[in-house]
Amino acid sequence: MAKAKIRRKRGAVTEAKEVSAKLTPRDKKTMGSIVGLADRVVDASEKRKDPAVDIPSRTLSNVRYSPRKGIIEMGNATNRRQLFDLSQAKSYMQTMLVASGTKKLLQQGKSTSLRGLYYMLKHTIEGTKENTFDDQNECDPIVEDIEVLLNTLREELHLYASNRGTMVGPITLVDTGDTIDCSRMGSGGYSIPSIVEPEVMQFVECDAKFILHVEKDTVWRRFNEDKFWKKHNCLLTHGMGQPPRGVRRLLNRLHFELKLPIYCLLDNDPWGYYIYSVIKQGSINLAYESKRMAIPEVRYLGLRSRDFERCQLSDSVKIALNDSDRKRAKQIANYPWFAKKRDWQREIEKMLKNDFKLEVESLISKDISYVTEQYVPARLADKDWLD
Amino acid sequence: MAKAKIRRKRGAVTEAKEVSAKLTPRDKKTMGSIVGLADRVVDASEKRKDPAVDIPSRTLSNVRYSPRKGIIEMGNATNRRQLFDLSQAKSYMQTMLVASGTKKLLQQGKSTSLRGLYYMLKHTIEGTKENTFDDQNECDPIVEDIEVLLNTLREELHLYASNRGTMVGPITLVDTGDTIDCSRMGSGGYSIPSIVEPEVMQFVECDAKFILHVEKDTVWRRFNEDKFWKKHNCLLTHGMGQPPRGVRRLLNRLHFELKLPIYCLLDNDPWGYYIYSVIKQGSINLAYESKRMAIPEVRYLGLRSRDFERCQLSDSVKIALNDSDRKRAKQIANYPWFAKKRDWQREIEKMLKNDFKLEVESLISKDISYVTEQYVPARLADKDWLD
Repeated sequence: MAKAKIRRKRGAVTEAKEVSAKLTPRDKKTMGSIVGLADRVVDASEKRKDPAVDIPSRTLSNVRYSPRKGIIEMGNATNRRQLFDLSQAKSYMQTMLVASGTKKLLQQGKSTSLRGLYYMLKHTIEGTKENTFDDQNECDPIVEDIEVLLNTLREELHLYASNRGTMVGPITLVDTGDTIDCSRMGSGGYSIPSIVEPEVMQFVECDAKFILHVEKDTVWRRFNEDKFWKKHNCLLTHGMGQPPRGVRRLLNRLHFELKLPIYCLLDNDPWGYYIYSVIKQGSINLAYESKRMAIPEVRYLGLRSRDFERCQLSDSVKIALNDSDRKRAKQIANYPWFAKKRDWQREIEKMLKNDFKLEVESLISKDISYVTEQYVPARLADKDWLD
Repeated sequence: MAKAKIRRKRGAVTEAKEVSAKLTPRDKKTMGSIVGLADRVVDASEKRKDPAVDIPSRTLSNVRYSPRKGIIEMGNATNRRQLFDLSQAKSYMQTMLVASGTKKLLQQGKSTSLRGLYYMLKHTIEGTKENTFDDQNECDPIVEDIEVLLNTLREELHLYASNRGTMVGPITLVDTGDTIDCSRMGSGGYSIPSIVEPEVMQFVECDAKFILHVEKDTVWRRFNEDKFWKKHNCLLTHGMGQPPRGVRRLLNRLHFELKLPIYCLLDNDPWGYYIYSVIKQGSINLAYESKRMAIPEVRYLGLRSRDFERCQLSDSVKIALNDSDRKRAKQIANYPWFAKKRDWQREIEKMLKNDFKLEVESLISKDISYVTEQYVPARLADKDWLD
C-alpha cells in the first residue's frame, strides 16, 4: 500500500509537463538534488524500508558562531522526518510536495514568491476534506527544510523574496540581459531584485571605492539628492530597514568579488545594532545561508551613543528607551560576536546609560545636509567606526 | 508685544540662508504663496488685527462627490486658526513653522520626508520646556493644512512620500536629467519616485497602448517574468498595495497626457475595491488633490466575485470574510460613485453572498501563468471589466 502510494507520488512528479525551459548549469545541479531526493524515497520503499529523510535542524541549539570565519554556522544535528509516523506523515507529504513544486518551477523556467508556491501546492486531497496546507505558515518552514535538506538556496529553487532595496552609484551591471548603469537611474535609483545570483546578474564595470549602506529609503534619498555618491565615488544602498535577502546577497557579492569595503549608517537603537549584526554575521534562522550572505568585515559607521554630545544635538530629538529596547540591547550585548569587543560593549552600555535612542534623521535638526556633508565624511576621514 | 514677536518671526524666515538654489518656475509660484502668507500675517499685526488664517476644512462633511467630474472634491468650508486664542496659539505657531520650514527647503533646492521636516522643525522653545512638536503626528496634519491653505501640493513644498511602486514597459522618460528606457531595466523595473511632476519628469517616447496596474509586487513580477508587457505592448505598474502618491500621480499623467487607458488587477476583497476607488475618484482625506490624482476612467479588470465559478477554482483557495470585511464591503457599496452602478452593486453583493474573498495569487492554483496567459487576455478581449 505504502509502496503503491509512493509510486503514485513519483508519477505525479514526473508527469508535470516536462516543458521547454532550458536549464542553466545551476538549475541542473538543483534539479539533480531534487530528483536525488525523490529517488532515495523510491529506493527505500522498494526495499520496504521507511523512506525517512534527515533534515538538518534549524533550532538555536544547532547554531554556533565561528570566531575564525566570523559568521554564524549550522551544526550537524538533524531531525528525522518519517512517513510511517502519524504525527509526521502530513509534514512528510508536505516536504515531498514542496520539492515537487520547486521541480516544476525549474522545469518551466519560472519563479514565484512563497505565497505563490503556497497557492500552487494548496489543494484539498481527493476524497477527503483535508487540505495539503491550511495556511501559508505551514508551507514556509517546509521551504526552509528543503533548502537545508538539499543544501540549496531559496533563489536556486526559483523562489523570490521581496524587492525592497535600492542602489545608485558608479557601477554598470547586467540584470537578466539588460545592461544597467546605476549612475543614470534618475531620482529613484536601481531597484535591487530578489535574485542576484551570477547567472542573472553580472558586474561589468565599477569605479566605486566603497559602499555606504543606509537603513532607510528616506535617508538614502537625502544622500542621493546631495549626490554623495558622486562626490565620494561610492555606491549607495538601502534595504528599507532589515535588508531583504537580495540586498544582503548583493552586498556580499560586491564586497567579495569587487573588494569594496562596506560602511553601515543605521539608527542608534537596538534595531540598528541588530541590522548590523545580521549583515555582518548572518541571522540565526537563516544560519545555513551565512556563507553567502554574511560579510564579517562590514563596518558600523553610526549613529553612535556618544553622538548626542559629540554633535551637540538638542534634547528634543531624544526618543526614550522602553523596556523592550533595554532587554533587546542586553541580549545583543551578549551575542558572542559582540561579547568580546570592548568598543561594542561601551557603545551599548552608553546607550543604556543615556536611556534614549537616536534616529539618523535627527541630524536634520542641525542642518538638512549635516549627515551627508559633515557627519559621514568626518567619520570616514577619522576612520571612526566599530567593527 | 504681539507685534514684536511677529517681527522676530519674519526676521527668522528671511534670515534663513538665502542660498544658491535656482528656483524653477513652479518653485517661484510656491515661494510666492508662502511669502504671501507671511506678509498677510505681518500686515494684519501692523494694523493691530488678529493675524488669523482661514484653513479649508478637511473633514468628511466638507467633501463631496462631483458626478460630472467623477471625482471627490472639497467644499468651501474653512476653519479659522487664531493666534489670540489660547487653545489655538500652539497650532498657529506650528502652521507658521511648517510654512517657514518649506520655504527653507525651496531656498536650498532640497527635499525631505515628512519625518525629516518634523526633525527640522522640532526644538525646545528657548526659556521653556515646551517643544514646538512633541510628536510627528502633530506635524503631519499641519503639512496638510499648509497644502490646502496655499492651494499647493506636498511635492511642490519639496516634501516626498515613500517610493514604493515600480514600472516596466515601452516608455522612455527623463527623470531629473537621466534618460530612462523602462523596457531595459532588468528584473527589478523602474522604481517610481515620489515626485513625478513635469519639472522633474518628462515623457520622451511611448509605444504602449494601455497600462495594466496590479496590486502587489509579487503579481507584478509574474507579469514581468512572462514579458506580458512585450506581448501586449503595455506598461506594467504596481503600487505595493494602496499606491503611494507618486504612483497615483504618474498614472494620472500617463492617462491624461498620453491618453493611455488603465486597467487594474486587484484582489477580490474590500481592500481591492477600495484601492480601485481611490485610484478612480480620489481619497477623502486627500480630496484637495483629486484633480491631479484621480482617474475617473480607470477600469476594474478583476478579480471578480464570480471568478470562483468562472475559473473553476478549488475550495482550498477561499479565504473566509470576517466581520470587518463585511462591514467594509457594505460601506463601499454605499459610496456615491458605486451606489448607482448596478454592476458594482452586483459585484459586492455576490462577494457578500460568497462569504469569501479571493487573492489574485489564487489563480496560481490553476497554473503559474494562468493569470498572464489566460485570465487577463480573456478579460481584455471580451472588454469584460467594471467602470
